[in-house]
Amino acid sequence: MNSFGSKFIVTTFGESHSPALGGVIDGCPPGVLIDIPFIQTELARRRGDSPYTTARKEDDNLEFLSGIYQGRTIGSPIAYIIRNKQQKSDDYNSLESLYRPGHGDYTWEQKYGIRDHRGGGRVSARETVARVVAGAIAKQILQQHNITLQASVVSIGGQTQYNQLLSQTKQEGDTLGGIITCTIKGVSAGMAGTPIFHKLQARLAAAMLSIPSVTGFEFGEGFAAANLKGSEYIDCWNPDLTTATNHCGGIQGGISNGMDITFRVSFHPIVTLPKGIPCATKDGQTAFIKPDGRHDCCQVLRAPVIVESMAALTLINDIL
Amino acid sequence: MNSFGSKFIVTTFGESHSPALGGVIDGCPPGVLIDIPFIQTELARRRGDSPYTTARKEDDNLEFLSGIYQGRTIGSPIAYIIRNKQQKSDDYNSLESLYRPGHGDYTWEQKYGIRDHRGGGRVSARETVARVVAGAIAKQILQQHNITLQASVVSIGGQTQYNQLLSQTKQEGDTLGGIITCTIKGVSAGMAGTPIFHKLQARLAAAMLSIPSVTGFEFGEGFAAANLKGSEYIDCWNPDLTTATNHCGGIQGGISNGMDITFRVSFHPIVTLPKGIPCATKDGQTAFIKPDGRHDCCQVLRAPVIVESMAALTLINDIL
Amino acid sequence: MNSFGSKFIVTTFGESHSPALGGVIDGCPPGVLIDIPFIQTELARRRGDSPYTTARKEDDNLEFLSGIYQGRTIGSPIAYIIRNKQQKSDDYNSLESLYRPGHGDYTWEQKYGIRDHRGGGRVSARETVARVVAGAIAKQILQQHNITLQASVVSIGGQTQYNQLLSQTKQEGDTLGGIITCTIKGVSAGMAGTPIFHKLQARLAAAMLSIPSVTGFEFGEGFAAANLKGSEYIDCWNPDLTTATNHCGGIQGGISNGMDITFRVSFHPIVTLPKGIPCATKDGQTAFIKPDGRHDCCQVLRAPVIVESMAALTLINDIL
Amino acid sequence: MNSFGSKFIVTTFGESHSPALGGVIDGCPPGVLIDIPFIQTELARRRGDSPYTTARKEDDNLEFLSGIYQGRTIGSPIAYIIRNKQQKSDDYNSLESLYRPGHGDYTWEQKYGIRDHRGGGRVSARETVARVVAGAIAKQILQQHNITLQASVVSIGGQTQYNQLLSQTKQEGDTLGGIITCTIKGVSAGMAGTPIFHKLQARLAAAMLSIPSVTGFEFGEGFAAANLKGSEYIDCWNPDLTTATNHCGGIQGGISNGMDITFRVSFHPIVTLPKGIPCATKDGQTAFIKPDGRHDCCQVLRAPVIVESMAALTLINDIL
Repeated sequence: MNSFGSKFIVTTFGESHSPALGGVIDGCPPGVLIDIPFIQTELARRRGDSPYTTARKEDDNLEFLSGIYQGRTIGSPIAYIIRNKQQKSDDYNSLESLYRPGHGDYTWEQKYGIRDHRGGGRVSARETVARVVAGAIAKQILQQHNITLQASVVSIGGQTQYNQLLSQTKQEGDTLGGIITCTIKGVSAGMAGTPIFHKLQARLAAAMLSIPSVTGFEFGEGFAAANLKGSEYIDCWNPDLTTATNHCGGIQGGISNGMDITFRVSFHPIVTLPKGIPCATKDGQTAFIKPDGRHDCCQVLRAPVIVESMAALTLINDIL
Repeated sequence: MNSFGSKFIVTTFGESHSPALGGVIDGCPPGVLIDIPFIQTELARRRGDSPYTTARKEDDNLEFLSGIYQGRTIGSPIAYIIRNKQQKSDDYNSLESLYRPGHGDYTWEQKYGIRDHRGGGRVSARETVARVVAGAIAKQILQQHNITLQASVVSIGGQTQYNQLLSQTKQEGDTLGGIITCTIKGVSAGMAGTPIFHKLQARLAAAMLSIPSVTGFEFGEGFAAANLKGSEYIDCWNPDLTTATNHCGGIQGGISNGMDITFRVSFHPIVTLPKGIPCATKDGQTAFIKPDGRHDCCQVLRAPVIVESMAALTLINDIL
Repeated sequence: MNSFGSKFIVTTFGESHSPALGGVIDGCPPGVLIDIPFIQTELARRRGDSPYTTARKEDDNLEFLSGIYQGRTIGSPIAYIIRNKQQKSDDYNSLESLYRPGHGDYTWEQKYGIRDHRGGGRVSARETVARVVAGAIAKQILQQHNITLQASVVSIGGQTQYNQLLSQTKQEGDTLGGIITCTIKGVSAGMAGTPIFHKLQARLAAAMLSIPSVTGFEFGEGFAAANLKGSEYIDCWNPDLTTATNHCGGIQGGISNGMDITFRVSFHPIVTLPKGIPCATKDGQTAFIKPDGRHDCCQVLRAPVIVESMAALTLINDIL
Repeated sequence: MNSFGSKFIVTTFGESHSPALGGVIDGCPPGVLIDIPFIQTELARRRGDSPYTTARKEDDNLEFLSGIYQGRTIGSPIAYIIRNKQQKSDDYNSLESLYRPGHGDYTWEQKYGIRDHRGGGRVSARETVARVVAGAIAKQILQQHNITLQASVVSIGGQTQYNQLLSQTKQEGDTLGGIITCTIKGVSAGMAGTPIFHKLQARLAAAMLSIPSVTGFEFGEGFAAANLKGSEYIDCWNPDLTTATNHCGGIQGGISNGMDITFRVSFHPIVTLPKGIPCATKDGQTAFIKPDGRHDCCQVLRAPVIVESMAALTLINDIL
């Protein structure tokens, strides 16, 4: 339930306000030199530095507990933790008996019957910090195979130039979603994917839809392909068996074809509106709460590293 | 690689031109009365009856080999086969040394080094026949839990009224893609999904992207959510803890919230153009082939039952 | 539940009296030439030819349904079936409402609530026919890696010379158990096993204890090691890093050390006594039944090929 | 590789001399009150207090990092760590370039190419501390279902009274193995096990053989069953569908039959002889080393809690 991957398996743990968050990587090959500064850079990308992202600034003080000897992996599980420090648990007392709209509060309680309400508990997007650490290690290994991943924001609130919209929306106490695109270079033909249930696109889709706030996934032409004719969608061969176009996003029959792998992911705006949100009590009465100032206006700005991390955690299983 | 599900596990096998296709279901609960006529009805939906779908009309003569005693499941694996009869393997001789564009021909060979070229081999969409059988059994069980699934075509080639477009495109020897929507009713709050990697939307996305020709998945507002403000996207609570709107498509924090689960799937047009397709030889030379007349102009028309089947095979694991 | 293996995954299906038994192998590498005569030889070993084994002589007419093209595997699932022909289902009518001692009749019904009583249903040792087919294919691949497996009977009823005991016991209408030893040659140091939960000995033990009638597993010195001192048990190194003795049965720290892998397996005598067995009715009354003449006096005689098959199905996952 | 279980999944991590050892439990039901004193008692059983067990006395200072709120589990992963304190890593410098006999030193290096030699690294029996914590939580849940487990030493060095043998062997600087028996009470008929590959005995065998130094497993009559006739082995029914005898150790057809589940496990003597051990250098030369005084004369004395823990971690998956 909390594990991802078939060979390079990462299990994450931790709640927003538990003593620590972290992960265990099982299946990392031995001999990999762990590049701590690179992992810290990736964590910094996730924290973001924009005026539109959360004011909860954890140090993300990362500690490795096992699996590394003299700076290199040894083939055993790599456990790592990040202690939660900036918890302001008291801020959340008011949430104990409330269900926020769009959050997992109500559904978690329906499923498990018990809940750590502080900061969203396990469902907090803070969980993704453990994914970024594992993703950074996966990236290092992929890099050795000349595989690189790059995600970037293509639009916010429907705008490709969005600074003014962000500024205005923040003032309104509202939030914005957006779209991120990702390109993976260096995956050779036949290297990634399988033909039936675990097609490369199926695994990438599952990886992306596991990211909080993601509402859609498309690869290659994506939804636009539904409006094309076959003669417009077809990718004709070049003499070297690359293709002249890349409508199929680098995947044929579920398997990489050697072209760039391209996909897009949509994020809904976060539903913790700074201007206040209408919650429900357990007996269905309305309660209006105003969150503290530590919530994002637009989390999409710091999501590219999460998209890359999950894509790396997907692909690494094909490489090993 | 060829299995789907964690509790109700279906493994499919078979190539387009092997002696048989089929599947094994492991984990089906005991005591289920197998409704053969319903399964046949579902198979008929998949075969389609439109002038725009393939002329290869297999009988889909289904035989159960195990796991059923006196019409009921007994808790052991249910194996079933459908013999391939209408194989015209000779028609495919010309394909032995060619790679069709957009198909798995080239990528399969790059991955496995050896290939059954006849009719697309394992990568043929004919494999979905085994999914529909398993999906029909899953539906029967879901039905007993008052869960129903309904998929339908919302557009073909970008048109919501598309009869004329189909007729014209068929004459042109071209093909069309489209979009299918699916609604699942009866899943109660907390019943389906988990909060982190195996969010309900992640598993549905993987299921949908495993269907041949699918290029995108979105749930609830989907990609459109990226253009909304938080105050527009938010689903406010009703006093009975249903929500006044359903922008989130029935899923909060990865778990069902009791509202209808809604998602959409896009299909690219099939790339075997009746008017002919430019293939590549293994050394990269162009070869133009004209397929026989048994290929779809628009496979989307018979895809709703496949979408429903894969959704049922996803959800059944949450119910058991 | 009915699958074995992590990379070379075999799923078996079928009851003693269902239309067919069989299996699906997922993960077999492509390009393997299937040696049908060898598989038939292995099936003949399982059927046995001794006067002390069952008189139910199925032809074991094996049919491959998929995954093979022009005699070679292509990387897709290999499905195979063996139709049940010599079913004398009526012979079993008397068993419908009885629980035999030592069989799965009662426990299956307690677990699943419904049962195919004919011939033991799914719990029949006939299921092992599907393992032998898969094991034979695994052996072919292991052979290419110079790995060979050999199992043989070391004692029957506590005797290493046991012909007279067998003859006498058959006359008495009683049955005998025995012990089988197995040696695997050619597994190099580091090739098989992992250090913690999936130690090679743990996986071999699980494989052996999954065989009907097996009551114990030991490797190397096994239970006798409990009576030795450390100085007696220790395997000293040779200059080439082989060991002078092999008390540890070729496994150190859960991983193969390059020496022969050795283990032993005990089988209890089958509990369907030809002279008659005291059964229970569902309300606990005693019913004495006399089986037909088709039951083994000593099934151990035909078990070596099953032990080898399960060992091969274990090891193949380390090689791929 | 480092995970155990299908529903209650424990992943362990840590080396003998890494910053910490620990585990993550995924799938623990919500609402379980964690009984810390009981866990500490179990850890104390594992440390032992005999003059014949290791002098490395860690405090086993256990810290839970996640998954618990107000003393109860909440359905999310439970991570816990035990920091390594009494590391005397320098003691092990001499081992860096040596392979001890019977240990995983050589095989680990052959498999992974790199090794943490300090204290046996990952292969150290200290890893079992993480199993005992998880096992204690599993036991608490089993207890609520009235299932209890009890393991005890039946013989040491072949003696059922063994104090004098222990004393003498310690003086000799030698070591002793032994046999442990385990009885599980309260598992009802049909509750645990499945009929084919994951028979209850197969899973228990795998669990036991995953414990360091275990060389054999048998259930019910075990190896002795091979010497009995069927008429001697048979368990006749009582009117209440219990059995008059329990030769089959509470398991029929791979599934619990409601009687006590009984099995035995053999342990070889540890091969780190206090009086000194003949190692090999990497180029095969002999090097005699004398370990410090912190090694067991007979680790079997503190193994019952490990046997119980692994049995509990096996059974808990049948209960959930």
